[in-house]
Amino acid sequence: GDIGRLVVSCPDGPGIVALISAFLHRHGANIVQSDQFSTGAAGGRFMLRTEFHLTRLRERLHLLRRQFDVEVARRLGAEFRVRAAATPARVAIFVSRHDHCLLDLLWRARRGELPIEVVAVVSNHPDLEPDVAAFGTPYMHVPVTRATKPAAERVQLDLLRGEVDLVVLARYMQILSGDFLDRVGVPVINIHHSFLPAFAGASPYERARQRGVKLIGATAHYATEDLDEGPIIEQDVVRVSHRASVADLARGGADIERTVLARAVAWHCADRVFVHGATTVVF
Amino acid sequence: GDIGRLVVSCPDGPGIVALISAFLHRHGANIVQSDQFSTGAAGGRFMLRTEFHLTRLRERLHLLRRQFDVEVARRLGAEFRVRAAATPARVAIFVSRHDHCLLDLLWRARRGELPIEVVAVVSNHPDLEPDVAAFGTPYMHVPVTRATKPAAERVQLDLLRGEVDLVVLARYMQILSGDFLDRVGVPVINIHHSFLPAFAGASPYERARQRGVKLIGATAHYATEDLDEGPIIEQDVVRVSHRASVADLARGGADIERTVLARAVAWHCADRVFVHGATTVVF
Amino acid sequence: GDIGRLVVSCPDGPGIVALISAFLHRHGANIVQSDQFSTGAAGGRFMLRTEFHLTRLRERLHLLRRQFDVEVARRLGAEFRVRAAATPARVAIFVSRHDHCLLDLLWRARRGELPIEVVAVVSNHPDLEPDVAAFGTPYMHVPVTRATKPAAERVQLDLLRGEVDLVVLARYMQILSGDFLDRVGVPVINIHHSFLPAFAGASPYERARQRGVKLIGATAHYATEDLDEGPIIEQDVVRVSHRASVADLARGGADIERTVLARAVAWHCADRVFVHGATTVVF
Amino acid sequence: GDIGRLVVSCPDGPGIVALISAFLHRHGANIVQSDQFSTGAAGGRFMLRTEFHLTRLRERLHLLRRQFDVEVARRLGAEFRVRAAATPARVAIFVSRHDHCLLDLLWRARRGELPIEVVAVVSNHPDLEPDVAAFGTPYMHVPVTRATKPAAERVQLDLLRGEVDLVVLARYMQILSGDFLDRVGVPVINIHHSFLPAFAGASPYERARQRGVKLIGATAHYATEDLDEGPIIEQDVVRVSHRASVADLARGGADIERTVLARAVAWHCADRVFVHGATTVVF
Repeated sequence: GDIGRLVVSCPDGPGIVALISAFLHRHGANIVQSDQFSTGAAGGRFMLRTEFHLTRLRERLHLLRRQFDVEVARRLGAEFRVRAAATPARVAIFVSRHDHCLLDLLWRARRGELPIEVVAVVSNHPDLEPDVAAFGTPYMHVPVTRATKPAAERVQLDLLRGEVDLVVLARYMQILSGDFLDRVGVPVINIHHSFLPAFAGASPYERARQRGVKLIGATAHYATEDLDEGPIIEQDVVRVSHRASVADLARGGADIERTVLARAVAWHCADRVFVHGATTVVF
Repeated sequence: GDIGRLVVSCPDGPGIVALISAFLHRHGANIVQSDQFSTGAAGGRFMLRTEFHLTRLRERLHLLRRQFDVEVARRLGAEFRVRAAATPARVAIFVSRHDHCLLDLLWRARRGELPIEVVAVVSNHPDLEPDVAAFGTPYMHVPVTRATKPAAERVQLDLLRGEVDLVVLARYMQILSGDFLDRVGVPVINIHHSFLPAFAGASPYERARQRGVKLIGATAHYATEDLDEGPIIEQDVVRVSHRASVADLARGGADIERTVLARAVAWHCADRVFVHGATTVVF
Repeated sequence: GDIGRLVVSCPDGPGIVALISAFLHRHGANIVQSDQFSTGAAGGRFMLRTEFHLTRLRERLHLLRRQFDVEVARRLGAEFRVRAAATPARVAIFVSRHDHCLLDLLWRARRGELPIEVVAVVSNHPDLEPDVAAFGTPYMHVPVTRATKPAAERVQLDLLRGEVDLVVLARYMQILSGDFLDRVGVPVINIHHSFLPAFAGASPYERARQRGVKLIGATAHYATEDLDEGPIIEQDVVRVSHRASVADLARGGADIERTVLARAVAWHCADRVFVHGATTVVF
Repeated sequence: GDIGRLVVSCPDGPGIVALISAFLHRHGANIVQSDQFSTGAAGGRFMLRTEFHLTRLRERLHLLRRQFDVEVARRLGAEFRVRAAATPARVAIFVSRHDHCLLDLLWRARRGELPIEVVAVVSNHPDLEPDVAAFGTPYMHVPVTRATKPAAERVQLDLLRGEVDLVVLARYMQILSGDFLDRVGVPVINIHHSFLPAFAGASPYERARQRGVKLIGATAHYATEDLDEGPIIEQDVVRVSHRASVADLARGGADIERTVLARAVAWHCADRVFVHGATTVVF
């Protein structure tokens, strides 16, 4: 419980690591693990993720945050976060009718494999309620039609406001508006069932079959207004043969979808993902 | 030396396997291995590849081919090939300045890993001549400019006419005209340095870096007039990190390019690849 | 529902495919897909798996089986099976306390991804009963101690007798006796949490960590009296780093375990796996 | 040319990163990239690899090394190396008759993909001399028989003394004596053609085929007196089918052997590999 996590992003320049590590040392924090990356010494962006041990972390966390702000962040022009590694991220999962990504996340959360607390499942269909109930997780059925979409998004925003640190679209077949993404105030991770940028848009398995690709994939990315264009967090692929029908591809793809999404959520919630322009840095 | 290969493609229907296997049995050929696939029982295409053992194959091959034509192929409306498995394919390799795919094919051919005889290397640059000379393979330098391209293609066609069974574009940075592809009379395999259909066209590594993909790939396909749209034979990918520069991607990608191209050439030359519309069936 | 599956294994020799395909053609069955393999023309074993379409398959299946026996199998000295592809395999899953392989099989069965009906879950612990109940599958708690093991195995055998086509050990931490394996009368598939033959026996993740391997794996194999020595059906691996603790390896390994086991069960139940001595042929 | 590399290993404790980063900052070095790992805060080993930019690195390197020794290393009880990243490692490659690993290393070195200078190829056979000559690299034929082995090793040691930073065994089929390994004074990397610890010892492909594994692999490790037991640097695998003969496995395995060995050599020469007991940490 005494492991803390410090995440820093700032313009690159000399002496940053020395400044940060001296700060931690001065305040009694011992670095357990650290990663850093710069997009370029001149005019680039410096990113750092450090795990440290600090006795009585929780009671000292608030003060440490303020001290870091004053003693380091302002001098570097840095954005930063400090938090206790043991605090789980509060997550809302959006889903339509495909259960594989949803169930995989719920199950991994339950067995302690993902550092998340699923505070709600939001769906435009009632189908998966019994499955979610078995995990003791609230299920919110918010139907969406073309006409009711703005109202539905307001309901969703009301449900989530202040309650979640992350929204995960686990095969949610509705397009969220730019307005929703602006107002939700937390990152939104989506799983796309293709190896982006190949087969962006609808029906990727059908199009993969038509093009005759030999591998199919899945891509987890941050949702942005530009559909399927958000920064990619993780991707993976699986081999397919000419014998596979579109249905076979969808079935086989389900495995890689849930695996890729689970990795992306795990990495995001462990503060390992930095967005840098249209791309990500993943430590 | 007594292993033969029979490749058949025809409209699907009942009794095809029975007809073909009875033919082989009747003529003393023993099936060693066989693959078949149909794109659909009703109106689909049936494809079959059989390896068989037949005593004194070479002296009987010509007759067997005629008998198969009369006794089987005409009844099925089938296209077919019969040949001795041990006969290497005669291959011309086109290359510009990148040596990795070329050298890999030459090495593999020399060590008996690929069932090919490289009869010529054709290049629009003189750079790789010494490397090719070390393998004892003829190197034909055919410079190409926008103005001289039609003439250059005629030279190339004259060099190849009747001499090769396959042309391999091993990072040949010129676009062959549709006219060339029509007239060359043999299949042309190209290696594209991306996981098609992602990053079709020029500069795939630059664009992969900009898009922030987590895997880069390579695609071997039959060359057609529609650039980067030909039927895909093989693809593979390799994981990359945010630390990789475009130059790193190009270096790392070279490995996957040469591996994918070598597989595609090996499979093609072993008669394992069937073109079906815009896709391939690979046994 | 009119797709049947024929599986044949016999000493290799000339004319086998001709004989079998003529039989199918004569009885109105149209071959949809076929695979065959021989371990060697002289003295080898021939194996064939064919999917065929036959109108009114179910009512004709019994007779077809007898005709094949008389007209083909006896002449070839062949073992064979013919059955309707749509009939699911009846499966009992044995498990101890790790839920990942069990839940994965139950999920896949429910969503129609695996052609199985899970008729019972048998466990030496009561822990997973609620999870299994949610799927409507009977849970049989059969405690096992060193002293009660023979009695427990008799109970298990009584439960399964005639009711199942396959037993799957989904991280069942008890060693089944040779006597049990003899008497159960159906194949038993086990998942081992290492890339066999590396780290056979207990505690593979601990030993993988000590040895410093860079990949960990899982192996699905038929259970035999020689522990971890049975014929391998499927294996796969995942990359690990020096940062992974034994607990991390166990967590990461869970994914590859359930994936490998699901593939092995799917392939077995689709009649794609032939045991040949200490190894398997997987079509 | 002004990029330096600092590698440190010492008992873990508080303030190490602060001390090292302050040192670099004080001497005008700007950290470009840094990795660190501890095997445990209490009693563990701390390892760090830093790339830094320092103007006029080469002329200041000698002094910087002495200053680091006095100002940092002695206080931490640390082992360390500082060197210019652009200086290639001097490598001797030992080989017998298989050319694939050797040629791959020579070719990668020539195209600048590996930061090495191959100063000599040493072989117990004359076969590969022409291939090596084409790269302009000296070839030293040192025949070895059971009787002449001690003398041969003395010849090899005389050839290498002070001339190399690394010895690579690229399918060298002789066992080097413990005495040789002691006296050679530089690390020795070996490639083993199996996924160790599976199939340690002779004839791994034969044994892989007998056991019926579904993946074959290769392992690059530091050579120690305990054959095939040295710390593993890198491993990878490739899928194989029941159709593959032992010769097919050897051919297919060659690709994975050369890939794995090239990675291991690249990582070693980039100072990314730390030996820790029987294992390695690879940044």
